[in-house]
Amino acid sequence: MDIIEQIVSGDVRTIARILRDIDDELPSSRSILQRLYPHTGKAHVVGFTGSPGVGKSSLVDQIAGFYRKESRTVGILAVDPTSPFTGGAILGDRIRMQRHFLDPGVFIRSLATRGQFGGLSKSTNDMVNVLDAAGKDVVLVETVGVGQDEVEIANSAHTTVLVTVPGMGDDIQAIKAGIMEIGDIFVVNKADREGSRKTVRELMNLIEIGLRRREGLDWEPQIVETEAVKGKGVDKLYETIEKHKAHLQATGSERWREVVEKRTRIQLMSALRDQALKVVLQRLDEQGTSVDELVRRIVDRESDPYTIVEQILDKGLQ
Amino acid sequence: MDIIEQIVSGDVRTIARILRDIDDELPSSRSILQRLYPHTGKAHVVGFTGSPGVGKSSLVDQIAGFYRKESRTVGILAVDPTSPFTGGAILGDRIRMQRHFLDPGVFIRSLATRGQFGGLSKSTNDMVNVLDAAGKDVVLVETVGVGQDEVEIANSAHTTVLVTVPGMGDDIQAIKAGIMEIGDIFVVNKADREGSRKTVRELMNLIEIGLRRREGLDWEPQIVETEAVKGKGVDKLYETIEKHKAHLQATGSERWREVVEKRTRIQLMSALRDQALKVVLQRLDEQGTSVDELVRRIVDRESDPYTIVEQILDKGLQ
Repeated sequence: MDIIEQIVSGDVRTIARILRDIDDELPSSRSILQRLYPHTGKAHVVGFTGSPGVGKSSLVDQIAGFYRKESRTVGILAVDPTSPFTGGAILGDRIRMQRHFLDPGVFIRSLATRGQFGGLSKSTNDMVNVLDAAGKDVVLVETVGVGQDEVEIANSAHTTVLVTVPGMGDDIQAIKAGIMEIGDIFVVNKADREGSRKTVRELMNLIEIGLRRREGLDWEPQIVETEAVKGKGVDKLYETIEKHKAHLQATGSERWREVVEKRTRIQLMSALRDQALKVVLQRLDEQGTSVDELVRRIVDRESDPYTIVEQILDKGLQ
Repeated sequence: MDIIEQIVSGDVRTIARILRDIDDELPSSRSILQRLYPHTGKAHVVGFTGSPGVGKSSLVDQIAGFYRKESRTVGILAVDPTSPFTGGAILGDRIRMQRHFLDPGVFIRSLATRGQFGGLSKSTNDMVNVLDAAGKDVVLVETVGVGQDEVEIANSAHTTVLVTVPGMGDDIQAIKAGIMEIGDIFVVNKADREGSRKTVRELMNLIEIGLRRREGLDWEPQIVETEAVKGKGVDKLYETIEKHKAHLQATGSERWREVVEKRTRIQLMSALRDQALKVVLQRLDEQGTSVDELVRRIVDRESDPYTIVEQILDKGLQ
């Protein structure tokens, strides 16, 4: 069996290896991604996003359990440096996760293994594609919900779940400021805490404001209260995610395709940006132009970054 | 007086206009940035980064007051969607800020006016350059501290202040995972809250771990406890920021230049990446290649994003 067949058949070791190669940016991983692509397009990609400490990992863990009860396979990608998947959590969290580590129907991969932020989002889409091609019915992507990268990842999911907790007024401000417009489902986790109803009410108001700004939206964002560590409300969240998927895939509707086109466009722009920089740097290297020297000229005010960028790009890329 | 002279002389209206033009990505702003660049390089750029709700804005507000007491001019850029500078905060915060709004020695600009995340970090460096050229002695940049963009902004400051609050265990995990390595000063704000000492101890441990990973570091990261709303401990923070600046600028030391070179390199890479994408898209447009059509071919699995990116870049950029 060649490597593509191995991945498509769901071989865990091969999947782990290709994900590592993607992380390491091995050139060989690109040709594998090319050959895997025809096998993609089946998985339901669900993004979970929110500030550190709101309990995204516990929710992802619980939701994975619901899929498993129906014998559906799950891929989990944690782009959250605070996630227990990345080894950054207290022992209790790790133990809670271990039941999935032992389940061959769940593939878990952390994307912060090196303790660095760079390049995470870039490879996330590629890793989603691998898990999709490997036949996972659903891919759950956990990200910290602030910053352009995270918004891009959330944008690239079919269903986006925004997680907050009671009393995080500023969090809601953040949602208001930008993330609001990308949320399909809002979760108030740790709903046993004081202020949960108030947070729900605030979200309801924001959703109403947001609805006016979202053109052509025919899905009204849902709010779900949960207590992930006790498993409370997670069944409702699971149902709501499934409802959103059904909404997108409704017969005669173009919604699923529209979401997929949006995801694809974002991924294409992101890949073009990164690869174009690579081409530029490679070309400078071939010409014997040292980036160090360019930096020195800027620092010494012999030139400026705007002129240097213009000069480099005016020459074209080959 | 031409526009460059007006900016260099600190004319508020002209500065506001050029910042707006940068935000709007007007091509004319680039030539102004080119001409302003020789006037840059004097301001001390201080980044404040941390999760929403930790009180960065209050700290920035207070610190600005200390600079003003010494008649130094201040530029403030808030890249935090939850910042009161962006109009997203409760009334009390806004009132607190207003004393600076009335002070001609403080120029405040929010970078989230449109409720969007895209392109914020890209223009932040340009805006820092404008305020630098306009003669501000210090530029305070407030960002939400998670995500690649924010780390890049923090990396582009001379002095980076990481802000947390007691009991945000997960926040500290985030710091551990990556941001740790970029912090010069750590602030435990809201230090009257339970757990402040514990948070300080955790930070001390992390700094010790971090020190082992930072080569050639001769500045030991400092921890400062504050209660920004009451103004407690902010004098200590101000002194520590000044101490870090003096450390960088110590006679016979290359530290300041090293930091500037690092900032410049990051800015150059970021600008090259963004501009290269622009060139690629413009070229596709001139060739009559529709991005919509490329997206359709990928979605219909007639091709894949990896092959399409390769084909576009193989042709070079002109």
